[in-house]
Amino acid sequence: MHVVIIGAVALGPKAACRLKRLVPDARVTMLEQGARISYGGCGIPYYVSGDVSDVEALQSTSFNMVRDPDFFREAKGVDVLVRTKAERIDRVAKVVHARNLDTGESIQLAYDKLVLATGSRPRQPDLPGVDLPEVFTVSNLDEAEAIRSRVEGGKVSKAVVIGAGFIGLEMAEALTEMWGVETTVVEIANQVLPGFVSVDLARMARQHMQEQGVDFRLPSKVLGFAGGSHVQRVLLEGEELEADLVIMSVGVIPNSELAMEAGLEVSAKGTIMVNARMQTSDPDIYAGGNCVQLPNLVTNQPGYYPLGSLANRQGRVIGTNLAGGDAEFPGAVGSFAVKLFDISVAGAGLSLEMAKRNDLEAICAHVVQTDRAHFFPEKELMHLELVVGKSGRVLGIQGLGSKNDGLVGRVGAVAALLARHPHVSEISNLELPYSPPFSSAMDILNAVANAAENILDGRGKTLNVREFAELWQRADRDFLILDCRAPANAQDFLKKYPDVWKNIPQDELRVRLGEVPRDRRIILFCNAGGRAYEAQITLENAGVTKTQYLEGGLAALRRIGMEI
Amino acid sequence: MHVVIIGAVALGPKAACRLKRLVPDARVTMLEQGARISYGGCGIPYYVSGDVSDVEALQSTSFNMVRDPDFFREAKGVDVLVRTKAERIDRVAKVVHARNLDTGESIQLAYDKLVLATGSRPRQPDLPGVDLPEVFTVSNLDEAEAIRSRVEGGKVSKAVVIGAGFIGLEMAEALTEMWGVETTVVEIANQVLPGFVSVDLARMARQHMQEQGVDFRLPSKVLGFAGGSHVQRVLLEGEELEADLVIMSVGVIPNSELAMEAGLEVSAKGTIMVNARMQTSDPDIYAGGNCVQLPNLVTNQPGYYPLGSLANRQGRVIGTNLAGGDAEFPGAVGSFAVKLFDISVAGAGLSLEMAKRNDLEAICAHVVQTDRAHFFPEKELMHLELVVGKSGRVLGIQGLGSKNDGLVGRVGAVAALLARHPHVSEISNLELPYSPPFSSAMDILNAVANAAENILDGRGKTLNVREFAELWQRADRDFLILDCRAPANAQDFLKKYPDVWKNIPQDELRVRLGEVPRDRRIILFCNAGGRAYEAQITLENAGVTKTQYLEGGLAALRRIGMEI
Repeated sequence: MHVVIIGAVALGPKAACRLKRLVPDARVTMLEQGARISYGGCGIPYYVSGDVSDVEALQSTSFNMVRDPDFFREAKGVDVLVRTKAERIDRVAKVVHARNLDTGESIQLAYDKLVLATGSRPRQPDLPGVDLPEVFTVSNLDEAEAIRSRVEGGKVSKAVVIGAGFIGLEMAEALTEMWGVETTVVEIANQVLPGFVSVDLARMARQHMQEQGVDFRLPSKVLGFAGGSHVQRVLLEGEELEADLVIMSVGVIPNSELAMEAGLEVSAKGTIMVNARMQTSDPDIYAGGNCVQLPNLVTNQPGYYPLGSLANRQGRVIGTNLAGGDAEFPGAVGSFAVKLFDISVAGAGLSLEMAKRNDLEAICAHVVQTDRAHFFPEKELMHLELVVGKSGRVLGIQGLGSKNDGLVGRVGAVAALLARHPHVSEISNLELPYSPPFSSAMDILNAVANAAENILDGRGKTLNVREFAELWQRADRDFLILDCRAPANAQDFLKKYPDVWKNIPQDELRVRLGEVPRDRRIILFCNAGGRAYEAQITLENAGVTKTQYLEGGLAALRRIGMEI
Repeated sequence: MHVVIIGAVALGPKAACRLKRLVPDARVTMLEQGARISYGGCGIPYYVSGDVSDVEALQSTSFNMVRDPDFFREAKGVDVLVRTKAERIDRVAKVVHARNLDTGESIQLAYDKLVLATGSRPRQPDLPGVDLPEVFTVSNLDEAEAIRSRVEGGKVSKAVVIGAGFIGLEMAEALTEMWGVETTVVEIANQVLPGFVSVDLARMARQHMQEQGVDFRLPSKVLGFAGGSHVQRVLLEGEELEADLVIMSVGVIPNSELAMEAGLEVSAKGTIMVNARMQTSDPDIYAGGNCVQLPNLVTNQPGYYPLGSLANRQGRVIGTNLAGGDAEFPGAVGSFAVKLFDISVAGAGLSLEMAKRNDLEAICAHVVQTDRAHFFPEKELMHLELVVGKSGRVLGIQGLGSKNDGLVGRVGAVAALLARHPHVSEISNLELPYSPPFSSAMDILNAVANAAENILDGRGKTLNVREFAELWQRADRDFLILDCRAPANAQDFLKKYPDVWKNIPQDELRVRLGEVPRDRRIILFCNAGGRAYEAQITLENAGVTKTQYLEGGLAALRRIGMEI
């Protein structure tokens, strides 16, 4: 059996190695148009920052062997042809026509089974000046080296990153933190990480990055680039940004032209269609990784998940199936994580906005709590949002926490369940490992599910920080903020805002109900939301019903950088 | 409606507060025989260590209010009677007969619904000298204060901890790390954390604690205690240990006498029987927390899970049901976590030994891998064990890692799924949030599932460190260790053990097959197990079948402290 694999970065090598472990005698040939293979592209921002000192580390095994063609031949028994571009697939003759990019030599490779691991390429908008030197994308190690050598050589004092997705923000951190480059991120949407997290969490993430020295322009549209021998300015609507270096990270495009020309089924969005066994419409041809469409396991709608982690797991599934096995990769729930300086942002499934775009009626609860027992000395505040459908079905989770692994762990636990469409009560009772150095007895994950349940039941009536900020900016302040904290905490606010601020500590509210106005909209306020919710119940029971409690309380306002 | 709650430490207050939030007019009375209520008993080791400076922190809310009877009355609308012992339940008249322990006054409380939150007490073996002063258990804040005042006052230079369960090990750390007390842990089983982790993981945990200065005697039986005005010696078989302080942590006994005398159904083990709604055999009486039996959701057998985290969640379920709701707590999967100096140990579901005790045929895979991308600068090795039934059903997970949250997160993701009886392929493809600062593209959790699948398929033939250590100690070394690493790594071992050690790097094995003896048992060896497994496949394909690869490789041997 001869298996040909087109593409040798992530999925290709994994499929090849898995197949060889199952069928050691199988003949496997991988083609790669680049010069380097089997590298961790997700590590590029850490190479640019200098955290990873040497680009070879991204190509190496955990035992420090470089995964080059020699390594694949000797350690894995897999042949690799680099600088070789597949140009055409003849599905009738079962031949791949390829060309050596250095010699121009044409090559024909007969296959029994074929794997398309063609990946994706960065989207490059057709803008004036986009071809100027020093306008980079972040797609391969050559570009990574070029960027690193510029900053290392001290040639970059100002950079502009276009796109505030994961890679854009990681690159902004890399340039700012390690190299002190003045970096501005330009994003066309009105928030960072659009499509992934709520406006609230996005503001918190942006605020943190601003505090670390990263500038933002959003929403803002790039009109083009200007310069001479290299880029010098990025042109926005109404503004020009100086730049010695530009990084474009505005998404990726699946490399599906080869599949399309071969007559395989390809979606309107350009993703190759595969079944759960990762077979294309031709059962002898498999595809996976950044070039395929996968079902979203929350919505059952087609999705696109260009992530190295998923590519690796799909590669193993393809390897098993090439060997005659019957493995499946049913789809994705869209898990993600990103480190931004000292914080982490992570999520899985749908944000509230994504749920609405999928015509799902849903609510979102936002809870702030310490990431370990509140009496434990080393602890930090974590923010979690749980998105739940009206039926009680959990649709997604997103959060922001310290840069330790605590947030990723909580999101991972929900991610593990999401495909099974769990009810919110399952998260209320979710049995995370408990010990004070790692969690609270009632962990923030349980707490956010409890909060969501209360909102669904109509008992919790909430205001999120975005809504609060809008309200606060109104000229006409027809509301009253009822501060449920101890007088010592409330006194500064009382002095500053005597017309709208009132303090009744939650534990005194039962006996001071008479002081609460009954005709005015009341915003219940405390440090993190807990006492405000308790106060809401007391007021509701006393017939005061025009109340909302501020989710996340003062902690959430501080985190978005709101001065109050 | 009047609800009486017996016990006010963890579950009781939670049930009371949840009920009051749902039915603000409900009348709720909590009885507690101790003087203090609503405290985090799991925090005691951190108070003893000094990490938590003040005992009040364990009784306080996250906003620093002490949860005393006044707080419950004012902030929560719940009445609390402390130093009040419930002596009898009259289920016909629906009255609790209680007594004030200070005044001797007897009290009758009529109830509509009753909650038994009576908790557990430490097991105290009937040994000579067990009543000597300075022999403590770890059951409440009074004892915690007594222990802390002894060590703080410099009165303790040697301590003995009896029992190497979670609390015992946490107390040993507290005494050693903060106070420099020479501490010895005595355990009757042949490992630490018996019943929770494998012998291998237990050895690794013990080794780490030994390196931090904790001594161990195991397996070893305590015969009694000797001393005069206070304890001075702990008597073991064949040895006496000097001690100024003894801590007994040999398990807990459910407080179910009251329930039993009231004629409620109680198991032979003394746990109160409840249904999923947490109702006892009397539908007007609920029970939860450390006094009840819960189904193990992996085995569907009765279990006992005395953990503050579960008590809190059950308390909320009881509160909902008291209010006329219909919440369920279906059971537990037995999640746990413990921090031991610089490492964490965590798990959920069954260990291999527990699976066998439940007559389940199972295998266990052990994988070592970095806890984040191997090219990321800050990373540590993690050990994960996945226990899988012959059918491919995942039964449990246990592991050992750094003291960060990475291990707890992976265990939590499997814990979330365990009750749903996942197949191992679901863990192979589990979509944890991925980014190099938090995980590998093929995360260790995916990797351990892959390894388990290979073992189940008969492709991976393994030796764990315990088996290796036994083999290594044999006089008759009829095996060959084939070291699959680079020559530079292997050379010291080749010199030391020329008769049993041979080096063929994995990437040279295909062309050097002739050098491999065919008549001898072969142990394949590398740094972490990966190359050894690859070599096994190459050998198998060449007809060399008497091979096993060492799981976790040299990294695992080092972690148990084995000198080789």
